[in-house]
Amino acid sequence: MIIVLKPGASDVDIEDVSRRVRDFGFKTHLSRGEVRTIIGVVGDDRAKEQLLALQSLDCVESVVRILQPFKLASREAHPDNTQFKVHGVPIGGSQIVVMAGPCSVESQPQLTAVAEGVKAAGAHVLRGGAFKPRTSPYAFQGLEEEGLALLKEASKSTGLPVVTEVMEPDKVDIVAEHADILQVGARNVQNFPLLRRVGDAGKPVLLKRGMATTIQEWLLSAEYVLARGNPNVILCERGIRTFEASTRFTLDLNAVPAVKQLSHLPVLVDPSHGTGHWQLVEAMALAGIASGADGLIIEVHPRPEEALSDGPQSLKPERFAALMARARKVAAAMDRDL
Amino acid sequence: MIIVLKPGASDVDIEDVSRRVRDFGFKTHLSRGEVRTIIGVVGDDRAKEQLLALQSLDCVESVVRILQPFKLASREAHPDNTQFKVHGVPIGGSQIVVMAGPCSVESQPQLTAVAEGVKAAGAHVLRGGAFKPRTSPYAFQGLEEEGLALLKEASKSTGLPVVTEVMEPDKVDIVAEHADILQVGARNVQNFPLLRRVGDAGKPVLLKRGMATTIQEWLLSAEYVLARGNPNVILCERGIRTFEASTRFTLDLNAVPAVKQLSHLPVLVDPSHGTGHWQLVEAMALAGIASGADGLIIEVHPRPEEALSDGPQSLKPERFAALMARARKVAAAMDRDL
Amino acid sequence: MIIVLKPGASDVDIEDVSRRVRDFGFKTHLSRGEVRTIIGVVGDDRAKEQLLALQSLDCVESVVRILQPFKLASREAHPDNTQFKVHGVPIGGSQIVVMAGPCSVESQPQLTAVAEGVKAAGAHVLRGGAFKPRTSPYAFQGLEEEGLALLKEASKSTGLPVVTEVMEPDKVDIVAEHADILQVGARNVQNFPLLRRVGDAGKPVLLKRGMATTIQEWLLSAEYVLARGNPNVILCERGIRTFEASTRFTLDLNAVPAVKQLSHLPVLVDPSHGTGHWQLVEAMALAGIASGADGLIIEVHPRPEEALSDGPQSLKPERFAALMARARKVAAAMDRDL
Amino acid sequence: MIIVLKPGASDVDIEDVSRRVRDFGFKTHLSRGEVRTIIGVVGDDRAKEQLLALQSLDCVESVVRILQPFKLASREAHPDNTQFKVHGVPIGGSQIVVMAGPCSVESQPQLTAVAEGVKAAGAHVLRGGAFKPRTSPYAFQGLEEEGLALLKEASKSTGLPVVTEVMEPDKVDIVAEHADILQVGARNVQNFPLLRRVGDAGKPVLLKRGMATTIQEWLLSAEYVLARGNPNVILCERGIRTFEASTRFTLDLNAVPAVKQLSHLPVLVDPSHGTGHWQLVEAMALAGIASGADGLIIEVHPRPEEALSDGPQSLKPERFAALMARARKVAAAMDRDL
Repeated sequence: MIIVLKPGASDVDIEDVSRRVRDFGFKTHLSRGEVRTIIGVVGDDRAKEQLLALQSLDCVESVVRILQPFKLASREAHPDNTQFKVHGVPIGGSQIVVMAGPCSVESQPQLTAVAEGVKAAGAHVLRGGAFKPRTSPYAFQGLEEEGLALLKEASKSTGLPVVTEVMEPDKVDIVAEHADILQVGARNVQNFPLLRRVGDAGKPVLLKRGMATTIQEWLLSAEYVLARGNPNVILCERGIRTFEASTRFTLDLNAVPAVKQLSHLPVLVDPSHGTGHWQLVEAMALAGIASGADGLIIEVHPRPEEALSDGPQSLKPERFAALMARARKVAAAMDRDL
Repeated sequence: MIIVLKPGASDVDIEDVSRRVRDFGFKTHLSRGEVRTIIGVVGDDRAKEQLLALQSLDCVESVVRILQPFKLASREAHPDNTQFKVHGVPIGGSQIVVMAGPCSVESQPQLTAVAEGVKAAGAHVLRGGAFKPRTSPYAFQGLEEEGLALLKEASKSTGLPVVTEVMEPDKVDIVAEHADILQVGARNVQNFPLLRRVGDAGKPVLLKRGMATTIQEWLLSAEYVLARGNPNVILCERGIRTFEASTRFTLDLNAVPAVKQLSHLPVLVDPSHGTGHWQLVEAMALAGIASGADGLIIEVHPRPEEALSDGPQSLKPERFAALMARARKVAAAMDRDL
Repeated sequence: MIIVLKPGASDVDIEDVSRRVRDFGFKTHLSRGEVRTIIGVVGDDRAKEQLLALQSLDCVESVVRILQPFKLASREAHPDNTQFKVHGVPIGGSQIVVMAGPCSVESQPQLTAVAEGVKAAGAHVLRGGAFKPRTSPYAFQGLEEEGLALLKEASKSTGLPVVTEVMEPDKVDIVAEHADILQVGARNVQNFPLLRRVGDAGKPVLLKRGMATTIQEWLLSAEYVLARGNPNVILCERGIRTFEASTRFTLDLNAVPAVKQLSHLPVLVDPSHGTGHWQLVEAMALAGIASGADGLIIEVHPRPEEALSDGPQSLKPERFAALMARARKVAAAMDRDL
Repeated sequence: MIIVLKPGASDVDIEDVSRRVRDFGFKTHLSRGEVRTIIGVVGDDRAKEQLLALQSLDCVESVVRILQPFKLASREAHPDNTQFKVHGVPIGGSQIVVMAGPCSVESQPQLTAVAEGVKAAGAHVLRGGAFKPRTSPYAFQGLEEEGLALLKEASKSTGLPVVTEVMEPDKVDIVAEHADILQVGARNVQNFPLLRRVGDAGKPVLLKRGMATTIQEWLLSAEYVLARGNPNVILCERGIRTFEASTRFTLDLNAVPAVKQLSHLPVLVDPSHGTGHWQLVEAMALAGIASGADGLIIEVHPRPEEALSDGPQSLKPERFAALMARARKVAAAMDRDL
């Protein structure tokens, strides 16, 4: 970190600030400019969070962070891409992984139809929500435990591993019994008790970016999971909130190459939530692959107009199959397998 | 709701959509324009969430919501302002309530010093964090249960009721034993299991707006609490995330009169988190009162430069006292007591 | 448009509003719901701008627009894609067009080196700024007329047509004498006098989206040009402003398929300004093609570290050539030529 | 500025970057940390714009600005508040200035009615648009020169000075002949040719913040005017664009105290455009005064429901008078005159 002093800071001020920095266990490095004096703090930025409080001293103009505040998630600490397998499905390597399924698990027939459809089209993982975070208390809240059982059953019959959302620490165990990947949703990206618990659960975690989460904050949330000893975190960009209202969110594909520079973790893209309109899903799925993403997560429903949640952004199975055909061509152009 | 059909929608299309609407139990009202046919849906919008799925039909251009989707939180359903008392402190009436204290409870001496300072300056409620949601896993995470005990002790010695944050459903009971008002923080505004639990806890709830939460979503989160039979919800605007980086967040005072039009719930303003810089806190506190807010929540620390969290936005007790003196004048100009 | 009346609106209110609508020359269509009465306005939404003022009547809750407010730019009015040629370079058809060159024209040797480099790599159009909109008055403001002359010379020697920015109505004529495509920059997307003048100039117009311009506003700005009789408008997405600070702007690729649904105009993508970091340019260029864009505009400089503007986002010629090689593969996967 | 090198930067890299900095005429100050080497650049940041290009060197991680890039607009260079008079109306001192009038000048009777109404209620300056920037080419574009003449006439008959918008450099002279303050609108905040021309015109300039303009960019736009020798710039916060759609824009009152820290220029607040709903105008006007603003600019129309532009946000004269009565009380509480 760099501490910028106000013009007119006295030698007493400079020594006072320097002493405070040293009291935290860091070395200082003084640089007197024509207008401002700057105190460099030598040591690991990750331990320096508390130095930000020095901004409240009268003689301090600003405290500027120089290093990224995450460590386990950083490519600097871990140059090679994280790669692992979920029931034989490789994640983070040269193969693009595709997770697909309904927004909500609604019934056994619905889930079976979708699971078979997406498998036939080439999806590798089945997605489906049993616990649903819904903006309105009057909306369908998911089948809960019953939904988990249906997912497990569909997983068995199709052989596809399952990813599903867990919304509270207390449900981590039961979700982990039924699912192969634990999803932490956008609204829980800074639900720190939940992050700690999924970090302890021993299953890979799909961590969605929040709708107002900076890339730095997102990687710090991943750091919560990694710091519990769970290295298998999959990041998922799913759209941020901007002023543009013609899409439900703004899928931020810039985050894909930006995260790839900063971190070794695999990055997926969710064009369904990211756009909110099925008509835009294919274009943004292909763009996601071309941006360098390691996979996609896509909502599919046999009758979107009757879906209990997120119907407007769900693809019919045949449209999903068409998307997969085009996705394979773009993946090949990117020297990736699909 | 209004369902707008695409140009060229046939009579068969119109009848198909109308039948689907009727199957959900609503009446329809047809309006044929020169270019578009519109199907009005007659009935309560709050039950119509699922009609949004009709957007995925090929003949449908858009589904437009006409009514607000919340009910218990709406001024339409409840014209008079919600007013209640917390240990004798009136909230939602003509008196401006001021909650003040440290960001984090750090120690008994720190908390006592602040509690006595803010009480002397005229604060009505003591704030202080025992469980702290921190962006980085390497930052101070709060004194937890020990912090709760210190808060209770400080409450006893000063007579000030206490507001503190609860971050997970499992901790609601223990927090409710120690605190008088349960705070749901900005990062948990859509933590629906938590909202249900605080709705059941029988204590007033201070519900902060999330950094990317629309006013409509915020009131739907309040609706989760109200729907559990807990009428005592206090809303708190604490800054939204925008492109402007010179403030930590953008305190959105527009939300105060906007919410007051839509809802009967009391609204507080948090200029500390909203701006992130103590130098801006007084100006925005005064502006908050002038915008029509029912109260303030402000961070105070005896030595902000040594605070374990949020030092840069904390006021020293003497600055807080000066703020209170000016706030009284503005409150009087607004015909409010303070 | 739809006029939603407040609950309790009387028959007198309804007739008053209806009469006002009819006075503007529209027909009305009344729909009485259980809670709200709705007045549909039958006729072309584009002429209804002034009806928005009815929101200020006490009995009116809201006025909701149903149709898009642009006409000439809409796909509804013009179903086929707009296609045209600039000195033999096809725009808007199956071929991806690539415009490349330096941010600023700095000197004859610099421009020649870049022009030859980008031509050799396969670019179709030379870009370069002579008049530069700079945030700071102390920054390099461009070579102005001298820069135009250098562009014309480079165009002659390479055979590449030229696109360059025009910043004020008075300079449209001289820029049009030297350039083949007139660029209206992001900061001028709602500079309406300028839009009218480029609409009159008889040359194709490249209209960048502003950093806070909605898709609807952007198409209305295009409508200003089209309404002057100039059909050759090229839209260019170049990044919007969001809370995310790790990229200079957030390149909004969602806008590509969203605009393609609404409009027949060709859409380009500018990954240089959109990201602000040369390390992200290739990924977002490829993603742009996969999202369905009709072309790219990219900044190239022989020595980015010495560039007088936008050095951090400029590619060296050899990196641009590598980008083009990968872009050709993605274009082929999309069944487009490059 | 601070240049942060990547880990592993060699001595050759360090010397290469240092030499480049010295070639621009600055001194360097080297600081070797445990992980990163940092090169401090000693000298005025305002001349360092071009150093940002060094980010494109392979060994450079980032270039961090330490000082604000504006000079004439900064409080550091000019500690006392700028104060001046417009036809006897003091601006920037202890008196709150109120500018009021219709969005558009529509007719002589309309303007006269409003001008007399706002004068009677205590407004100091008459506002009114003759040249109107309208999002749609099909909307009313203003009475132009005829509107200017009506403004001059209304100014004469009421004695109120006039502020009106100028949209293009060529119209600056004619607007300056008719108006006392030249307004540069939000959409033109980075129309640099226009800023230069109003800088030369010898009349005070009201510079609105753009809807996506950072405070730093806004002050740099003011710097364009100041650098032409025109010291009388009035800043006007009028709402920024955020995700919140229930208000037209988000009036950012945080900008008022934030700008006051950075700059000596007077700051006004526009609650009409900032909120877009007349019901919110009074609350935000009062909040603006309490935030420390030096004045207000408010839209008033005798029949908002018939206004040719911005009807929904216009106050009737009697509501404006009520606002003024309450504003006087808040101003007094702030020790300001009104």
